[in-house]
Amino acid sequence: MKVLSLLKHWRFSPPQILALGFGIVIIVGTLLLKLPFSTTAPITWINALFTATSATTVTGLVVLDTGADFTLFGQIIIMILIQIGGLGLMTFAIITVLILGKRIGLRERLLIQEALNQHSIGGVVKLVKILFIFSVLIELIAAIFLSFRWVPEYGWGYGIFTSVFHSISAFNNAGFSLWSDSLSQYVGDPVINLLITVLFIIGGIGFTVVYDVMTTKKFRQFSLHTKIMLLGTVIINVVAMLVIFALEHSNPLTLGALSTGEQLWASYFQAVTPRTAGFNTIEIGDMNPGTIVFTLLLMFIGAGSASTGSGVKLTTFIIILLAVFTYLRGKQEPVIFKRRINNDVVHRSLAIVVISLIIVFVTILLLSTSENAPFIYIVFEAFSAFGTVGLSMGLTDELTFFGKQVIIILMFIGRIGPLTLAFALAKSAKPSISYPKGDVFTG
Amino acid sequence: MKVLSLLKHWRFSPPQILALGFGIVIIVGTLLLKLPFSTTAPITWINALFTATSATTVTGLVVLDTGADFTLFGQIIIMILIQIGGLGLMTFAIITVLILGKRIGLRERLLIQEALNQHSIGGVVKLVKILFIFSVLIELIAAIFLSFRWVPEYGWGYGIFTSVFHSISAFNNAGFSLWSDSLSQYVGDPVINLLITVLFIIGGIGFTVVYDVMTTKKFRQFSLHTKIMLLGTVIINVVAMLVIFALEHSNPLTLGALSTGEQLWASYFQAVTPRTAGFNTIEIGDMNPGTIVFTLLLMFIGAGSASTGSGVKLTTFIIILLAVFTYLRGKQEPVIFKRRINNDVVHRSLAIVVISLIIVFVTILLLSTSENAPFIYIVFEAFSAFGTVGLSMGLTDELTFFGKQVIIILMFIGRIGPLTLAFALAKSAKPSISYPKGDVFTG
Ligand SMILES: [K+]
Ligand SMILES: [K+]
Repeated sequence: MKVLSLLKHWRFSPPQILALGFGIVIIVGTLLLKLPFSTTAPITWINALFTATSATTVTGLVVLDTGADFTLFGQIIIMILIQIGGLGLMTFAIITVLILGKRIGLRERLLIQEALNQHSIGGVVKLVKILFIFSVLIELIAAIFLSFRWVPEYGWGYGIFTSVFHSISAFNNAGFSLWSDSLSQYVGDPVINLLITVLFIIGGIGFTVVYDVMTTKKFRQFSLHTKIMLLGTVIINVVAMLVIFALEHSNPLTLGALSTGEQLWASYFQAVTPRTAGFNTIEIGDMNPGTIVFTLLLMFIGAGSASTGSGVKLTTFIIILLAVFTYLRGKQEPVIFKRRINNDVVHRSLAIVVISLIIVFVTILLLSTSENAPFIYIVFEAFSAFGTVGLSMGLTDELTFFGKQVIIILMFIGRIGPLTLAFALAKSAKPSISYPKGDVFTG
Repeated sequence: MKVLSLLKHWRFSPPQILALGFGIVIIVGTLLLKLPFSTTAPITWINALFTATSATTVTGLVVLDTGADFTLFGQIIIMILIQIGGLGLMTFAIITVLILGKRIGLRERLLIQEALNQHSIGGVVKLVKILFIFSVLIELIAAIFLSFRWVPEYGWGYGIFTSVFHSISAFNNAGFSLWSDSLSQYVGDPVINLLITVLFIIGGIGFTVVYDVMTTKKFRQFSLHTKIMLLGTVIINVVAMLVIFALEHSNPLTLGALSTGEQLWASYFQAVTPRTAGFNTIEIGDMNPGTIVFTLLLMFIGAGSASTGSGVKLTTFIIILLAVFTYLRGKQEPVIFKRRINNDVVHRSLAIVVISLIIVFVTILLLSTSENAPFIYIVFEAFSAFGTVGLSMGLTDELTFFGKQVIIILMFIGRIGPLTLAFALAKSAKPSISYPKGDVFTG
């Protein structure tokens, strides 16, 4: 409790600390990537900044070819930035939620307690340790399995490095690849498909869910958050796979040329990667326009809370749909898994979605005036940067100087979280006066 | 009160009656427009249906040239469909809200009382009479003023008809014009600009607002709804005019070639027409892509409740923004003009916006797979049809058969109102069980 009151006397609020921390990592990363021995040929400052931001925010949008334009040193820097960005935010989320608790009332503390079974300071330290050990262990195991596949193909040195790089990039939902066509050459490879997607799904579902599943035996005993995330992830991935298979299986540029087995793997991969891993095994720009529009939605929804992914978050999306459905049924509060969802959670979800839509809308408006590119390229790039997804129809390396700046800011906001940013900017309310009720026609 | 209980025993719910009524008008309209003497050359059934739907839903998207492809008889049919569609929905909204009252509780009834000072059946009849007299009077006065401009230009016969046609089309926010380039030839004409915009702004602000302003003397005594609509309309129009002027004044294809006076009139016109009149004085497709994206937002927001316009409605948009701002400030209920907005109003607004976004999203997804057109054309067409705006980048008459069907359904939904439709489809809730509270991480 002494630590709590101590932390409360810091001059910065948690969102400001988070933004500051990310800012410092990005600046150091930019300086390191600008070093002559980081790249095979000199790069501009804006491209160094763009790459450092993309890595730290685990986005994966690239203005340079990670495999060809960066030296081994440069690639290691990128890998470290990804690890700091991915693990760092998860750690920060847990610490903030558990200790600093700005706007965290009794209700939220009980929620944390339920989710993590931890609420003392000692518990937090233990929890962060578990998070680190778990993450590194997962990455290590996956790297070893990937090595089985890639050492025979590329030899010991590059085979092991590329396994470690892609393992870290996948678990942290970074989407950076050492190959310019991402994982397209492994479109039908079951081992690569399975290892990479399991990594980014575990990383993206959120640590509280992983911890809950590890420490609780039965589904019925899981926290409400865990139940929603598990069921929601299964449903959205199955639906997405079916939609993508239906829209692409006859497209000669994507699935049309593949065998049925490869078609299923590719549909699965493109269904799970937009929330918000960012690897791809088929060319995004070759997909059916309908599939591209559907992918926009998946990128906007994003991953789980306190995870290596971004977006508005799957729970936010589910709560919003549930609230609308509840309103239509004439009920007061949404009910899911026999639990009532408080109005405050609904309003928080509403705030997240509206602020996110405003941010993406303004980005699209700005890029529409500055970039000379098809509208769908711009829309796709904006959703991808906001969700820190990293998929692109090919606009990224053709962005103007202004366009790169906009995308850099958007990746930063997307990772910090639009609501966090909004809280950081909002002034706290004055003591409130109680006004009489008023009413308005809507719709 | 006898009428009330009588109406409650009707087999159809109000949304079903509304949909049915519009459906019948559209079918009759289609049959009439398909008559040999309605058009100068034979037209297809789908084009007759499209035109009848566009007119009845006061959208203004056209697959045919209203001035050239239809005879005077056909044009009169279109004009009548517009009048029925525009006035009919306003009338229906008032009657439904006052008498039928599905989901209308005490709170809403008090709101109506506050807005219209009417709540008895006799009051309703009187009110509908006032609505009709007011509307026809406004249209008549405007037609006379327009005649001053157009009779000298086109002679007595066509001059008077075109004045009446454009007056009705403008007041009902239909956006149908007898000229294929809409009102582009009057881009700098103060009389036409002023008359047409005043007509569609009055029609689009909603009859409750007009009635309140007519019967109440001071701003402070206006209902909350009236205050929000008046202030909101001024703010959004001024902001829109500034944005459009800033983005277009150096565009040689639009404002660049005009004098400063014409530039101001054109900026004003294009600022007010997307919510949801649909006339234009500059070519939409020639506008800066940024202006086009901004126009999407205006089209989505739309006009006022119980008006001749559609969209999610300006009040809905304001309530949503207000709710987000309130949440960020850590307060419970939004406050505006010293009145608290109930959570129920916020949830209703949320439902309207989410359902609308889903409808527009699905439309864009469908049209992306069916239409061979630039993505921005498809997005623009979908927002325009949903908001029953009628502006187009030129896709309408190039739509496939499937695309026309989609847009017909979208115009219908857009006019009936997405929430009305959702209520019509939703089953009512079972007696509710009280569940314990649960909690979820969002964002
Ligand atoms: K990513
Ligand atoms: K219209």
